[in-house]
Amino acid sequence: MVLGDIFVLAFVPAACVVGILFALTQWYIVSRVSVGGHVSNNGYMHVDEDGVDDSSVVAKCAEIQAAISEGSESFLYTEYQYLSVFMGIFSVIIFVFLASVGGFSFDRQPCDYDPAQSCPSSIANAFFSTVAFILGAVTSTLSGYLGMKIATYANARTTLEARRGVGKAFIVAFRSGSVMGFLLAANGLLVLFLTILAFKLYFGDDWVGLYEAITGYGLGGSAVALFGRVGGGIYTKAADVGADLVGKIEQNIPEDDPRNPAVIADNVGDNVGDIAGMGADLFGSFAESTCAALVVSSISSFGTDRNFVAMCFPLIISAAGIFVCLLTTLFATDLFTIKGVKEIEPTLKRQLVISTVLMTGAIFLVSWYALPETFTINVVGHEPKVVKNWHIFFCVGSGLWAGLIIGFVTEYFTSNAYQPVQDVADSCRTGAATNIIFGLALGYKSVIIPVFAIAAAIYLSYSLAAMYGIAVAALGMLSTLATGLAIDAYGPISDNAGGIAEMAGMSHEVRERTDALDAAGNTTAAIGKGFAIGSAALVSLALFGAYVSRAGIASVDVIQPKEFVGLIVGAMLPYWFSAMTMKSVGKAALAMVEEVRRQFRTIPGLMEGTTKPDYKRCVQISTDASIREMIPPGALVMLTPLIVGTLFGVETLAGLLAGALVSGVQIAISASNTGGAWDNAKKYIEAGNSEHAKSLGPKGSDAHKAAVIGDTVGDPLKDTSGPSLNILIKLMAVESLVFAPFFAANGGWLFRIWT
Amino acid sequence: MVLGDIFVLAFVPAACVVGILFALTQWYIVSRVSVGGHVSNNGYMHVDEDGVDDSSVVAKCAEIQAAISEGSESFLYTEYQYLSVFMGIFSVIIFVFLASVGGFSFDRQPCDYDPAQSCPSSIANAFFSTVAFILGAVTSTLSGYLGMKIATYANARTTLEARRGVGKAFIVAFRSGSVMGFLLAANGLLVLFLTILAFKLYFGDDWVGLYEAITGYGLGGSAVALFGRVGGGIYTKAADVGADLVGKIEQNIPEDDPRNPAVIADNVGDNVGDIAGMGADLFGSFAESTCAALVVSSISSFGTDRNFVAMCFPLIISAAGIFVCLLTTLFATDLFTIKGVKEIEPTLKRQLVISTVLMTGAIFLVSWYALPETFTINVVGHEPKVVKNWHIFFCVGSGLWAGLIIGFVTEYFTSNAYQPVQDVADSCRTGAATNIIFGLALGYKSVIIPVFAIAAAIYLSYSLAAMYGIAVAALGMLSTLATGLAIDAYGPISDNAGGIAEMAGMSHEVRERTDALDAAGNTTAAIGKGFAIGSAALVSLALFGAYVSRAGIASVDVIQPKEFVGLIVGAMLPYWFSAMTMKSVGKAALAMVEEVRRQFRTIPGLMEGTTKPDYKRCVQISTDASIREMIPPGALVMLTPLIVGTLFGVETLAGLLAGALVSGVQIAISASNTGGAWDNAKKYIEAGNSEHAKSLGPKGSDAHKAAVIGDTVGDPLKDTSGPSLNILIKLMAVESLVFAPFFAANGGWLFRIWT
Repeated sequence: MVLGDIFVLAFVPAACVVGILFALTQWYIVSRVSVGGHVSNNGYMHVDEDGVDDSSVVAKCAEIQAAISEGSESFLYTEYQYLSVFMGIFSVIIFVFLASVGGFSFDRQPCDYDPAQSCPSSIANAFFSTVAFILGAVTSTLSGYLGMKIATYANARTTLEARRGVGKAFIVAFRSGSVMGFLLAANGLLVLFLTILAFKLYFGDDWVGLYEAITGYGLGGSAVALFGRVGGGIYTKAADVGADLVGKIEQNIPEDDPRNPAVIADNVGDNVGDIAGMGADLFGSFAESTCAALVVSSISSFGTDRNFVAMCFPLIISAAGIFVCLLTTLFATDLFTIKGVKEIEPTLKRQLVISTVLMTGAIFLVSWYALPETFTINVVGHEPKVVKNWHIFFCVGSGLWAGLIIGFVTEYFTSNAYQPVQDVADSCRTGAATNIIFGLALGYKSVIIPVFAIAAAIYLSYSLAAMYGIAVAALGMLSTLATGLAIDAYGPISDNAGGIAEMAGMSHEVRERTDALDAAGNTTAAIGKGFAIGSAALVSLALFGAYVSRAGIASVDVIQPKEFVGLIVGAMLPYWFSAMTMKSVGKAALAMVEEVRRQFRTIPGLMEGTTKPDYKRCVQISTDASIREMIPPGALVMLTPLIVGTLFGVETLAGLLAGALVSGVQIAISASNTGGAWDNAKKYIEAGNSEHAKSLGPKGSDAHKAAVIGDTVGDPLKDTSGPSLNILIKLMAVESLVFAPFFAANGGWLFRIWT
Repeated sequence: MVLGDIFVLAFVPAACVVGILFALTQWYIVSRVSVGGHVSNNGYMHVDEDGVDDSSVVAKCAEIQAAISEGSESFLYTEYQYLSVFMGIFSVIIFVFLASVGGFSFDRQPCDYDPAQSCPSSIANAFFSTVAFILGAVTSTLSGYLGMKIATYANARTTLEARRGVGKAFIVAFRSGSVMGFLLAANGLLVLFLTILAFKLYFGDDWVGLYEAITGYGLGGSAVALFGRVGGGIYTKAADVGADLVGKIEQNIPEDDPRNPAVIADNVGDNVGDIAGMGADLFGSFAESTCAALVVSSISSFGTDRNFVAMCFPLIISAAGIFVCLLTTLFATDLFTIKGVKEIEPTLKRQLVISTVLMTGAIFLVSWYALPETFTINVVGHEPKVVKNWHIFFCVGSGLWAGLIIGFVTEYFTSNAYQPVQDVADSCRTGAATNIIFGLALGYKSVIIPVFAIAAAIYLSYSLAAMYGIAVAALGMLSTLATGLAIDAYGPISDNAGGIAEMAGMSHEVRERTDALDAAGNTTAAIGKGFAIGSAALVSLALFGAYVSRAGIASVDVIQPKEFVGLIVGAMLPYWFSAMTMKSVGKAALAMVEEVRRQFRTIPGLMEGTTKPDYKRCVQISTDASIREMIPPGALVMLTPLIVGTLFGVETLAGLLAGALVSGVQIAISASNTGGAWDNAKKYIEAGNSEHAKSLGPKGSDAHKAAVIGDTVGDPLKDTSGPSLNILIKLMAVESLVFAPFFAANGGWLFRIWT
């Protein structure tokens, strides 16, 4: 290790500033596509499009964009109002629970991990944990909001650029995605780094106390992400399913037809669910894996040696990731240009490969220069583990490459370029029932390799560096976050662009281009979800390990009844949660269906396109339903660790976390891949690009109708219940970690009465 | 404890003989309904039915019954041929693996649990384990075969009795079910008891060696059950889905219409899947839970005290169960008579309640008189547990009552008398997609209470009597096996009866009666599956405990990488397995669809009913497909423990078993309840017994079509993949237990190379 403290103090903030500046540059470039009514000077407005009056098309796009933006903003505003109340209450809970551990005393206390040392008072711990919680929540909220702003800014611009060619449109969508990716990654890292520096003013050299308090940051981030994912997920799918059920199936009008009253709500949903929700989710993963790594490292030998550079290793990795992703982005935006539809998916896939290869080198350098050659990691109840710095290279790398494997497997199972989706499409020949059976089977099957990849990464990193290895493996998977988010955000932006093209009445050619962008977006969205789930699994395990260590549990022996009962109930929780969220989507969609039917029935001239539907009413229905319906599943996740820890104690809670983790991963992966496959099976039939696809189509054929049913079933699976499960497993783990001192001191009331 | 050895030697065989005699009596009563061509002397033949020529209807029934019986027999014959090859190979594997532990030596060796004592040579252990394995396999095969014989004997008789009223038909179906229930329970117990006595001639007072060898009995039973469930499950659903897809959806002919070429195969499927498969499954559970209890008790204080009566406690419980079930059956067949359709479900439900209440008393008596007042259970790595005999009463009782709770919850979620199924039916209003979403959500939700019930039973029994408590809790749930099987077998018999009525062209009134019997049968089938899954969970845990103890593992600490990797991969296995079985059903169903379409296309006069379809060809397709498709999932289950134990060692295998158990239970419960709910939602719309139901119907309405799609999707879930998962978790556990000495001695090659 050759780096001094000054390096960290310069490198990490520099990376953040560069990331933010890069994001702003991309934003500036996107902003040059004008959607204002006035003619811009760059000549874009002079593109002629099928004789449709040019300025009227642009004005229409601007109008639709404004409606989508307004709807998104109003939903997020309402959501954040509820969230702030919840955050306020939960801040009080955190403070009171944690402060009660030491009897609300201001005196310093002996440490859990080493009673010979003195740790901060419980009041201080409670105070700083609460502050970190609020900071995490605010940063997460900001991340989601920024993502939504950028996406609604970019959608109409992508549509307008699609008139000039698929390559131009792709670049706008992708640049906008990277604005979000870089802003989020840089912003999250910067706030975390500044918080650590600020906390250090109080904690001084007490790294253990500091990093335990910092875990509140992860909790805050994930709590917001939960409501973002669930609320946004219900919103988007209620609108989507509602719009499809009446529009496509009953009235036989195309997707995104402006006559459909739910069409604006559907487009709003893409932004609040897939963009804001996903942003908050991945920010949460990043915050939590960093916190988990920090907590574990604080009781390592370099923690007790007060080695600042080594302690900041997780932050340096993330900072290096920003530079790597920046370089990677240039490959898509500047070094190559896309000329045809067929190049879209390979370009996006190449982003994953390039960032992974470059990052591998960066990890090697950081491991070599930022860590001591040899150090020890403390393991509760076992001998300390001796670790070499090149071990850590393999830990971080195993996470990174496991992520790539998950990405490729997800692509294989959800892209319609491969056999699995084509088989599902083929099964539509015999109707919706076989389509559903084959789709479910595909989702189940798609779990196999990702789970093996995760298991291998876990075994390797744990063998090399115990729980620290797991935590940095999770960081490795998230180190290319900016790129992952960019290609992920690209999907909903393209989806919106297609919607706007349809609504603005643009030519068939433009719509074909946006459809191609969108189909690639479906696959990248599934890949993004794969990453999110894979990293969630590693993060949760790392948090679980940190929890076990902080709660002072020597082993989680599942052959003991307390742990086993936790394990089996924990494995049930993802089902309970999914039942709630799917039912919520179903109920909200039924409400939407009633409203859309009512409008078609009562508004004269709607079907003929002479009158406009009442879009706002549908936006309102989705907003109300999602806010109302996000509370029970949210409460389930937030309250379970509190109740189980308090009533049944730390061992049962440990079992519960393990059960929820191993069961949740499977449902989450299978749900999002099943949904993605159904969506693309439908698109495969619609596009009709092969003899086989043509034999199933065209739109409106029996096979296509069966495919639409599969797509509709897949919507809540892939966009609501599936991706929310990541947050379920992460959030329960980080919450348990934050409250561990309380549970260790006061938990297990019921069992104490019983025995 | 006041009973002598002579009591056990008399009571257990007496119960078996009484059970068998009772079954034969019921069979005799059923046989008095004549389906021969000649007029019987009991007057049954003189029932007049809508002017349809009486003797021709009877002859037609006899003909259809013969076809179903022949098809079933030919399938089972083919299946058993493959099975016997498999059993032969696996017998060799067991013998070689176990004998290799002691280097194929005939010398006695120090015991694992106490090196001071001497245990049988590994050759002896291997030999007796193999013999027990073969006996278990043969008994299981016999159980399945007998069930099928009885069911195919009873189906036409139920149809004929339906002409005389619903009560008469119910009694025939229920009596036939109880023939199977009692034969199976008594036969399984008798063979096991005689095997123990025979083995004792060699083992003498070495109870540990004896009971370890006896575990092979459970393995044999479950291995046959696996192939029975999977093969039979694929058979029945390939035929059912194939028949429905063409018949109901394309040709618009009713279910069980004789013009449908797959109709005989469909009816055969009910017998080989739901009857033979279920019989083998529950026999396996019974054998395994008894073996698990015996293994654990052999190292308890009464094991080392050579207390024969106490050692036989599990057998006495099962023997008492036979008497209790006998008494319970009389309530349905003799003490009350059913007069109307509405009384069917309550009567069946009452059977569950009566048997549970009576059994509670029996358990109390047996616990009091057969066990020492105080004894100790050895727990590897912990202090021996001191247990009182009334503790055991609570253990067995908790399993019994948890079973009843699971039964009631299952009924609530799958019977169309309650809100959940009616909600699912209502969601058909907006099409198949919402039906699927609501159905999946219902299945997920239905997991919650059963898991809590299982968890509570586990916690209570483990706290009171460690792993012995779990094993006897499983026995408690299975103690009313004869009744459970009776009401379970009742379902497919009624289903067949309905099919025969339709095919024989009986009047609308008769078909309405058989439909009502069948609807109740759907619910009882779901309840039966609930029992099977609940008991499988407890059995697997008990086997898991016995495995851990036999493999000499002190703790299964899932925070360790070896165990955690096993846990997450284990939780994935049920998905892998389900993907295989569902895909198999899909593929087999597509083959069936092609054949049925071909026959409709090429056989002139088929639609008009003037020519007969080629039933045999469809039977052959189902047989071939199911035999071919049962091998990969079967291999997955049978090979996984061998591979994992050998390559990764006992700890990873322990993690794997725990993961598969906690994850498999959830999927199994949700899959069978989702399927049951969809089936009954469809029946709810068809029956149209309420204003709400009428608003959704009638048959052929859009809502009904959506319901049919749900029903078809549910078929493989509830009858193939769901119920096979019980066997997956049980079988992997019992196999691990049998091979534990080998894995402990030679397992974990890969990790040994690595470290």
